[in-house]
Amino acid sequence: MSEFTATDCVHMARALRLAERGQYSAHPNPMVGCVLVRDGEVVGEGWHKAAGEAHAEIIALHAAGEKASGATAYVTLEPCAHQGKTPPCVAALVDAGVAEVVVALKDPNPAVNGQGLQALAGAGIQTRVGLMHGEVELLLRGFLSRVTRQQPFVRLKMASSLDGCIAMATGESQWITGADARADVQRLRARSGAIMTGIGTVLADDPSLTVRDTSLDNDGKQPFRVVLDRNLRMPLSAEMLALAGRTLVYCHRDKNRHALVEAGAQVIKVEGDRDTVDAKAVLHDLADRQVNDVLVEAGPRLAGNLIENGLVDELVIYQSPHIMGSETIGMFRTPTWTTLADRRALEISDVRRVGADTRITARFAG
Amino acid sequence: MSEFTATDCVHMARALRLAERGQYSAHPNPMVGCVLVRDGEVVGEGWHKAAGEAHAEIIALHAAGEKASGATAYVTLEPCAHQGKTPPCVAALVDAGVAEVVVALKDPNPAVNGQGLQALAGAGIQTRVGLMHGEVELLLRGFLSRVTRQQPFVRLKMASSLDGCIAMATGESQWITGADARADVQRLRARSGAIMTGIGTVLADDPSLTVRDTSLDNDGKQPFRVVLDRNLRMPLSAEMLALAGRTLVYCHRDKNRHALVEAGAQVIKVEGDRDTVDAKAVLHDLADRQVNDVLVEAGPRLAGNLIENGLVDELVIYQSPHIMGSETIGMFRTPTWTTLADRRALEISDVRRVGADTRITARFAG
Repeated sequence: MSEFTATDCVHMARALRLAERGQYSAHPNPMVGCVLVRDGEVVGEGWHKAAGEAHAEIIALHAAGEKASGATAYVTLEPCAHQGKTPPCVAALVDAGVAEVVVALKDPNPAVNGQGLQALAGAGIQTRVGLMHGEVELLLRGFLSRVTRQQPFVRLKMASSLDGCIAMATGESQWITGADARADVQRLRARSGAIMTGIGTVLADDPSLTVRDTSLDNDGKQPFRVVLDRNLRMPLSAEMLALAGRTLVYCHRDKNRHALVEAGAQVIKVEGDRDTVDAKAVLHDLADRQVNDVLVEAGPRLAGNLIENGLVDELVIYQSPHIMGSETIGMFRTPTWTTLADRRALEISDVRRVGADTRITARFAG
Repeated sequence: MSEFTATDCVHMARALRLAERGQYSAHPNPMVGCVLVRDGEVVGEGWHKAAGEAHAEIIALHAAGEKASGATAYVTLEPCAHQGKTPPCVAALVDAGVAEVVVALKDPNPAVNGQGLQALAGAGIQTRVGLMHGEVELLLRGFLSRVTRQQPFVRLKMASSLDGCIAMATGESQWITGADARADVQRLRARSGAIMTGIGTVLADDPSLTVRDTSLDNDGKQPFRVVLDRNLRMPLSAEMLALAGRTLVYCHRDKNRHALVEAGAQVIKVEGDRDTVDAKAVLHDLADRQVNDVLVEAGPRLAGNLIENGLVDELVIYQSPHIMGSETIGMFRTPTWTTLADRRALEISDVRRVGADTRITARFAG
């Protein structure tokens, strides 16, 4: 890393902050930020807002105008060399006379994957790669997961009491956590290309699973609403079917599909003979639909099933400062775990207060 | 509070730190610290180690020698004016020619309760009261609870996974939390006059409930081991009966008491017709035995019973970063709580990492 200076870090950190501005709108595209610097002065900045709109580099070049000539470009992700919905950024950087390009992360997207860097070098532009790549990998983990694993990044959100209860035995669960926690969930939703739940939750709570916080700059996007519903028990009157955005219902048996499609759902049959829809198949299908991040908001059955099958990349628990006791429903249904050796270890990456509740963010260890 | 200066605060804070040194040994006496200051110089310090040993003031006066004359004494608790196991401190302060006594907290003990301050004033010594009384009340909450409520301060300790499980359904529970958490529990035990559990835990785990950490300065004391055992099912072979210290077994029916007493237990019958021993009666009896602090280390049945009955003053949860799932036992058995309105709100006072685990300290709100 000795090839990078403290000044390089300052500019790349700024580019990273710019990239983050696209967190609610850029997907399925990666968030990207770009800073142009000439003679120590920032002459242009840009970030990518949404698919079909200008890339970060183009916006920064436009802002810099003639000052782009001889400048160094700090870009969080390798510039594209191919014609996509917009013209290739490499050509624009070359045309503008940029002297050097510093890139945090090579784009693993097969359409880029080093070709952007090669094209820059071929045009005589100096390139350096790797500065703050870890931070960018973290920011783009959903995009990277889809492109490299053909599977979205799966974030499982639960709301529980301090003693691990998500509802009373009667099903009563509104509300376990406070208004601030629910507002925070709006941000998790807006970052996601899909929100997944099980048919049990639809039948019990009839959730809308939409982004309703208008202060979030999500470019009007609604994540797919995804319901795992083996036998198509989804009610035609389900709230989510009437809302903006698309509802995808995954099933094993699709006899009743017609009425549901009429009601506005997209019904997708996946192969499987278990008593739950094959979640891995669903995730692959969602990756094909360009979903980078899936937020799961489900009951103990689907949540436990995803954990048992190792499909959860991140767990976000909103823990309310209450004791709910024994006449309740626990967080995860895991019928196959019978000894202490079956439990799963977590690596906690963040703990913070959200209103009166505590938000715990964790990944499964090893 | 304008009668106290910043310098007063510095000296009282030091006295408080000194008092804390007695946390594992002073009980049933209160922890007390004393600092003697003359002309801005600390000329003597003392803290109370154990019942029967010198009080903090006496130790500080001894350290100061002739320099005590004209000094200001900072004492965390009102000096005693009565002859106890040791001579009264007020007389010693007067004899030494102390000019002023600053006291954090009036001693609510009926044998003191203002008489110490009156005696000092009567001898022409200036007194000021109330500096840092809140901190001292927190430090002495066990002592104050016993003296003012005739009931010890009850601290309920639980070890659980992040999803609120304390054992597998099979009973397997060793170990939910790590070695650091268990070492921390040793400190909770050493601060307590009694450790309480239920007969179910004795039959399942045969715990020893002793202070084994020899690095803790507990003056060789072992807390009472207290077992709630309605029908005297306590096995004569129970580990704790063979260990140093006393085991108190509280029951409703004491037919089999003889063999258990032979085995080393003290059997105490309390009135009651419920299916669990009346915990409130047990706590009153423990207060009569001069227990300031009770640490409860019990299963979900006794833990839930104590919470349902509002007898828990502080909850300490060691939460391990694991998911244990559904084939498990939850933290609290609370058969009477059937709606969300029955849940109990907590005020979390402290959250910190203990090894890989998180320790959450809370009190019940309102």
